[in-house]
Amino acid sequence: MHQFKTRRRVEFVDTDLSGLVHFSKYFVFMETAEHEMLRSLGVSIHTRHEGFEIGWPRRAVSCEYVSPLRFGDELEITIQVERKGRTTMTYGFCLEVEGREVARGRITAICCVLDDPTGLRAIPVPPFIADQLQAVPVEVSDE
Amino acid sequence: MHQFKTRRRVEFVDTDLSGLVHFSKYFVFMETAEHEMLRSLGVSIHTRHEGFEIGWPRRAVSCEYVSPLRFGDELEITIQVERKGRTTMTYGFCLEVEGREVARGRITAICCVLDDPTGLRAIPVPPFIADQLQAVPVEVSDE
Amino acid sequence: MHQFKTRRRVEFVDTDLSGLVHFSKYFVFMETAEHEMLRSLGVSIHTRHEGFEIGWPRRAVSCEYVSPLRFGDELEITIQVERKGRTTMTYGFCLEVEGREVARGRITAICCVLDDPTGLRAIPVPPFIADQLQAVPVEVSDE
Amino acid sequence: MHQFKTRRRVEFVDTDLSGLVHFSKYFVFMETAEHEMLRSLGVSIHTRHEGFEIGWPRRAVSCEYVSPLRFGDELEITIQVERKGRTTMTYGFCLEVEGREVARGRITAICCVLDDPTGLRAIPVPPFIADQLQAVPVEVSDE
Repeated sequence: MHQFKTRRRVEFVDTDLSGLVHFSKYFVFMETAEHEMLRSLGVSIHTRHEGFEIGWPRRAVSCEYVSPLRFGDELEITIQVERKGRTTMTYGFCLEVEGREVARGRITAICCVLDDPTGLRAIPVPPFIADQLQAVPVEVSDE
Repeated sequence: MHQFKTRRRVEFVDTDLSGLVHFSKYFVFMETAEHEMLRSLGVSIHTRHEGFEIGWPRRAVSCEYVSPLRFGDELEITIQVERKGRTTMTYGFCLEVEGREVARGRITAICCVLDDPTGLRAIPVPPFIADQLQAVPVEVSDE
Repeated sequence: MHQFKTRRRVEFVDTDLSGLVHFSKYFVFMETAEHEMLRSLGVSIHTRHEGFEIGWPRRAVSCEYVSPLRFGDELEITIQVERKGRTTMTYGFCLEVEGREVARGRITAICCVLDDPTGLRAIPVPPFIADQLQAVPVEVSDE
Repeated sequence: MHQFKTRRRVEFVDTDLSGLVHFSKYFVFMETAEHEMLRSLGVSIHTRHEGFEIGWPRRAVSCEYVSPLRFGDELEITIQVERKGRTTMTYGFCLEVEGREVARGRITAICCVLDDPTGLRAIPVPPFIADQLQAVPVEVSDE
């Protein structure tokens, strides 16, 4: 899978007194799209693998805000696999409302053992996940 | 200890588009006061005890909203031990801003083993916690 | 309308380190069900009416927690109109996962003008809302 | 002012089932530091100016996560003015726990009129704010 789309309605609790959606909530919207994509592949964001508790702490995230998002808007979220590393996955997100771009974002997550006695430990992305996610092929012009 | 007081500033993210604090956030304010009280007694809300992971899931909570609470208000929270049960603690909360009552609430929490293979399991409140918390003495008129 | 049902998936951000859903989030789930019910009737929770900004601050809320709710659970929420007052609406909520009761709650909201210069001002529930919501008829035994 | 420091305790509600702080909450921590800095200068994040409602919607934000942050940690947040634009401010953040770097982030905010009938409208940063915030002087080597 290269790309996945989902929808959600902006809720009252997502807003702040400016009348707009609080900027931190966009990351929740992105994360939920990531989890829905994984669920659609039969994978949980938080699972046991070879006796360990596996999760995806974030290494880096970013978001650019393009146009206002308000209570009641129906958000369409597109997630793309931008890069598949040995221990990381990088996802790109596009958030739209009725075809209008609202924001674009990126999340790089590290596959980690969470319950190692020495703390978080990065591990290679297990094949049952990695094999199902493919980075979007780069479009190369052939001039 | 019967009673504990703490303060916090209402944050921007606590508000919603009505310009007021979202009603669900009052429970976060109460919970944080509960945790600060326990921390002041050297107790964590989430700890290991006799080999088990112990926590305090909630059995019942309530809140009455008395007057508006807004961004930037400095909230004073008073917590009282209302009832000490065998496996439960009931706390009463009073939220004020500059002497004006904003809300009052109640939380009943159950002391539970969280990692029992059979699921959540209520246990007697460990003495190192119970001994430090005393229900507010009932005022009895002597007629 | 007496009753309305909706569904939502529990999200990762709804959980806390106990592995359960944070107790304050149940109120967000209830509120969103309330808003979906109103939306299904063509009414917004936050609207202009006769030149004023109308909203529904909460007067009192409560929740009893019956069984654990976890990440990924698909929650079914039933909302009932329990009482229709002159300026208030009281809703009862039942939260279930696959037929298992998870929690029950109640929200009493006051219809208010939010932008009155003197502060919040309760007003009679406008007929275009009140006429569409009917309290659940009490079952009376006829002995 | 070039730089401002503040502290806060990580709360239970900030965590998720991985046992770590949810990545979206770091932006709340940064924002609250920004607001405290402005409050220390006598400026509110949300104010009226020349008859308009003025706020600071975000244009772009980012965060890199360096080491784990957990419930109960006492976070030290340093905010620096990185760039002062005509209509924007860019802040850099460093988050530490007992001298250990936890995360670093950046927020670019646009000074906007929020209640213009035509929608959000960027305006020059009012002098009573701009004059109090100075970008950190760039260290220039003198070769």
